[in-house]
Amino acid sequence: MDIVKGFPATSNSSSQLNVHNIIKHAARNFGRQEIVDRKHDGVLFRYSYLDAYKRVQRLANSLNSLGVMVGDKIGVLAWNTHRYFEIYFSIPGSGAVMVLMNPRFTSQELSYVANHAGLKLIFVDEDMLPIVETFAAECETIQGYVILTDKELDDLETGLKPVYSYEECVRKVEPVYEWPNIDETSASSACYTTGTTGRPKGVYYSHRDVYLQAMMYALNAMMSVKECVFQIVPMFHVLGWGTPYAATMAGAKLVFTGRYSLENLDELVQVLVQEKVTMSNGVPSILRALLNSLLNMDPLPDLSGVRFLCGGSEPPLSMIKEYWETTRAEIIHTYGSTEAQAIVTLNLPKPWLDREFSSEEMWEQKKKQGCVVVGLDAKVVDSNGKKLPHDGKSVGEILLRGPWVLGKYHDAPGSESQFTEDGYFRTGDVGAIDSEGYLKLTDRLRDLIKSGGEWISSVDMENEIINHPAVLEGAVVGIAHPKWEERPLALVVLRKEFRTKVDKADIIEHLGKRFANWQLPDEVLFVEAIPKTSVGKIDKKVIRADYSDIYTR
Amino acid sequence: MDIVKGFPATSNSSSQLNVHNIIKHAARNFGRQEIVDRKHDGVLFRYSYLDAYKRVQRLANSLNSLGVMVGDKIGVLAWNTHRYFEIYFSIPGSGAVMVLMNPRFTSQELSYVANHAGLKLIFVDEDMLPIVETFAAECETIQGYVILTDKELDDLETGLKPVYSYEECVRKVEPVYEWPNIDETSASSACYTTGTTGRPKGVYYSHRDVYLQAMMYALNAMMSVKECVFQIVPMFHVLGWGTPYAATMAGAKLVFTGRYSLENLDELVQVLVQEKVTMSNGVPSILRALLNSLLNMDPLPDLSGVRFLCGGSEPPLSMIKEYWETTRAEIIHTYGSTEAQAIVTLNLPKPWLDREFSSEEMWEQKKKQGCVVVGLDAKVVDSNGKKLPHDGKSVGEILLRGPWVLGKYHDAPGSESQFTEDGYFRTGDVGAIDSEGYLKLTDRLRDLIKSGGEWISSVDMENEIINHPAVLEGAVVGIAHPKWEERPLALVVLRKEFRTKVDKADIIEHLGKRFANWQLPDEVLFVEAIPKTSVGKIDKKVIRADYSDIYTR
Repeated sequence: MDIVKGFPATSNSSSQLNVHNIIKHAARNFGRQEIVDRKHDGVLFRYSYLDAYKRVQRLANSLNSLGVMVGDKIGVLAWNTHRYFEIYFSIPGSGAVMVLMNPRFTSQELSYVANHAGLKLIFVDEDMLPIVETFAAECETIQGYVILTDKELDDLETGLKPVYSYEECVRKVEPVYEWPNIDETSASSACYTTGTTGRPKGVYYSHRDVYLQAMMYALNAMMSVKECVFQIVPMFHVLGWGTPYAATMAGAKLVFTGRYSLENLDELVQVLVQEKVTMSNGVPSILRALLNSLLNMDPLPDLSGVRFLCGGSEPPLSMIKEYWETTRAEIIHTYGSTEAQAIVTLNLPKPWLDREFSSEEMWEQKKKQGCVVVGLDAKVVDSNGKKLPHDGKSVGEILLRGPWVLGKYHDAPGSESQFTEDGYFRTGDVGAIDSEGYLKLTDRLRDLIKSGGEWISSVDMENEIINHPAVLEGAVVGIAHPKWEERPLALVVLRKEFRTKVDKADIIEHLGKRFANWQLPDEVLFVEAIPKTSVGKIDKKVIRADYSDIYTR
Repeated sequence: MDIVKGFPATSNSSSQLNVHNIIKHAARNFGRQEIVDRKHDGVLFRYSYLDAYKRVQRLANSLNSLGVMVGDKIGVLAWNTHRYFEIYFSIPGSGAVMVLMNPRFTSQELSYVANHAGLKLIFVDEDMLPIVETFAAECETIQGYVILTDKELDDLETGLKPVYSYEECVRKVEPVYEWPNIDETSASSACYTTGTTGRPKGVYYSHRDVYLQAMMYALNAMMSVKECVFQIVPMFHVLGWGTPYAATMAGAKLVFTGRYSLENLDELVQVLVQEKVTMSNGVPSILRALLNSLLNMDPLPDLSGVRFLCGGSEPPLSMIKEYWETTRAEIIHTYGSTEAQAIVTLNLPKPWLDREFSSEEMWEQKKKQGCVVVGLDAKVVDSNGKKLPHDGKSVGEILLRGPWVLGKYHDAPGSESQFTEDGYFRTGDVGAIDSEGYLKLTDRLRDLIKSGGEWISSVDMENEIINHPAVLEGAVVGIAHPKWEERPLALVVLRKEFRTKVDKADIIEHLGKRFANWQLPDEVLFVEAIPKTSVGKIDKKVIRADYSDIYTR
């Protein structure tokens, strides 16, 4: 898109949108607002935005002491803690780039990221040291490791060196820092995506991206100083969906989960109720497990007014309903991507639809991904790139454009085809937008199975498989086929009590009620578990690789 | 402030924050939301954001037909109507600059503004034609006048030419417009301030300024699609405080007042109740008069949940209390300036203060101007420019800095002293900021008189009084007035030889040559001497005290 210069304005052209200004604002206006952090031992650590801002400034000073310069890249491997929160501001604010590292990446992927970014330092949570040790030797640019721990350095065992203690670093410097005024188009942070095939690809978010997204998110989610926001989404994912920044901008109380897994959600749920959380977010699998923990509580907590933003993949309507019926908490369906900094759509109600819809239609409406947030531009295009009408029926690829949408991957030759000439990012997601602006995804382009020139939706088929009473989990992928190009393969995990009682013919018969004969999978394999990605999604890449020759051998 | 370049980000650098994108977003997501406009005959006109957006595009097309180019300046003189709302988007969106013209300026001031801006066209409400006729001849750059009217051109009498009908212009073009992608630092609009002595000074707002302010305002005022926003603040003032843009961004229902005066507020109040307004804003004198009209209603309306943002000057606590006690509407104290695009602070509650304060302290708190909004930076400095602590006690001048704060006046040599070297704007307002971030103004450096929401420069008026051959000395101060908030009082010391030969009528007649009727002092008192301070300046504090009840007794 060409940029047209108009008549000059008279505003202060040197004022830049900088990430550190978000917490500076919070310290100034919401200094006494509480921040809570669930430590690994379950004890809750509490401090305030003002305390946090002092430590943020101390950390920025200590980055300078460690030799960090403007433009340096600093990796972070950590759980959701108050220290990660401080890092979220100190590294970008000092002019360096905070590179989020996903502990669920393989060591090959992590070393690739470290080298590709050219990391100078790594900040690492004490119990992620073993992960760093697996790839540190491969990375020549790393000059040191700052360890996030309550312990003394001598009490830790690690082969990494040199190592620094985060707490010592912040202790020995001043709590006042003169922030540089960073060009807002400079990178504040980076996230590497493995969403597509090939090497991880780097998305480098500018200060402006993060600032604008935080403002948009706080506005759309109606965050305020009255809210209590629970940071459940890992902060190593796409800036924790932007939640720590948006909540800080709004002055909301923030609660950090610390380390958790699906096994200890009972503890999280206790914190959620005790701290009077009003807002959180997560992928469907976490929210499902949270609900199970909530349902175990006696008495059942009343979560009236609580909103959970649910993204990553489509939450089942049954779960949305169950949340409402048992706890009065509301699930808000969202859609996003690493390339658009997490939140692209939010399914928010509109008064006129509330008036017109029946109760059943209201529930159906919640299955949509929602409306595109202010600032972003979305369009649906056919396979020739022609724009399709927003009629709720015309299905095509979703393209995104906007100030904080990716324009190119960092140093990733060959990835140019993911962008159009007029500046849109090709999401690879397929869906339709209706006349009210609601996006409904039907598939990922790469999740569509191409058989004899026709498309088969693997997602529809997975949903149908899960509807079978004997099935716990299911996955469907397209596998290369000598005649049809691709044919569907289904993997099924049966519930314990049904093992040995259900076979391929049963599944095929069940699917036959909804799918044409030619669409039915050639093979149905019963497995112990479905491979998952680091973000909990079905890892179709792995499944395709594992069974690549099933139709050709 | 120097700008430090960091590592390059990967975001789409061509996506600009453009004003027209605000209504494009509203049309896409809130297309069916209602916009209401009270016509001059009291009838309510209704349409939707989608309808409005089509007309906005038509108007942009017709601007092109009228020869408007990127960078051209277009004046507007209009009441709060749906047409002005359309103009708010079409002119900036086409790349031209919308210059707000205040019908309460004198014709000298208006012609100065027209020539200083170099207006190419003027959009004018039918019943403001006589105002334009008083200065049009002085302006060589003006090529035509677009009249906002429901009538046919032939039914209007005016000596202006050429004239165009707004409705004809939008009727004969297409409802689809290809918006240019305007460099966001280019001017979208301009407002001239007479806040200080001398000629009006131009503040040219960039697209980015307006976009960021709208986002900040909608966020802070918690605007959403569920709100109904009443545009009471004149749209010829500082972009109507940014309310039309913020409300559109949030998809709120919008109601425009049409023409009104303090005499017909009963009609406005009926609309307010009937349309279920939830938010509005205005200066204290308007809100006082609105409350009087509300109190005349039978039954008294319940305005629970309704918020009025009150700015321009400090609302009396008695009024804030009376609103709450009689209607349950809440007054939110704000502070702003033309140079910072209207809203600088908002007095919003904080949960911890709510818990700690007694009822009396809560009310006292509402007298403060509020906390500085996210994005802006404020400091209090002493007369040497030294930063004072935010302790609620240290009083000094308030300086402002931020992306949408003025960096310089447009083409106004001599005004540089209103800016500091490090990019702050000197507001000329005096106050303190407390540890919670609340600003409390105590005084104004500039002695301006606020009458019905408009400024009268006491210094200008004093200078004019002294120009009278019979006058030795003169002083003008603002005195509290029950209806207009403040009205000017003039003290005059006559030369000996003229005593008994000059009276109030002579002075008023003399001032009438330069000042609008509404600006003229209500009282002119002839005195022996003007009170002076120790350094020989007029002691306005003493004068105000001596005559404090002259308009109320």
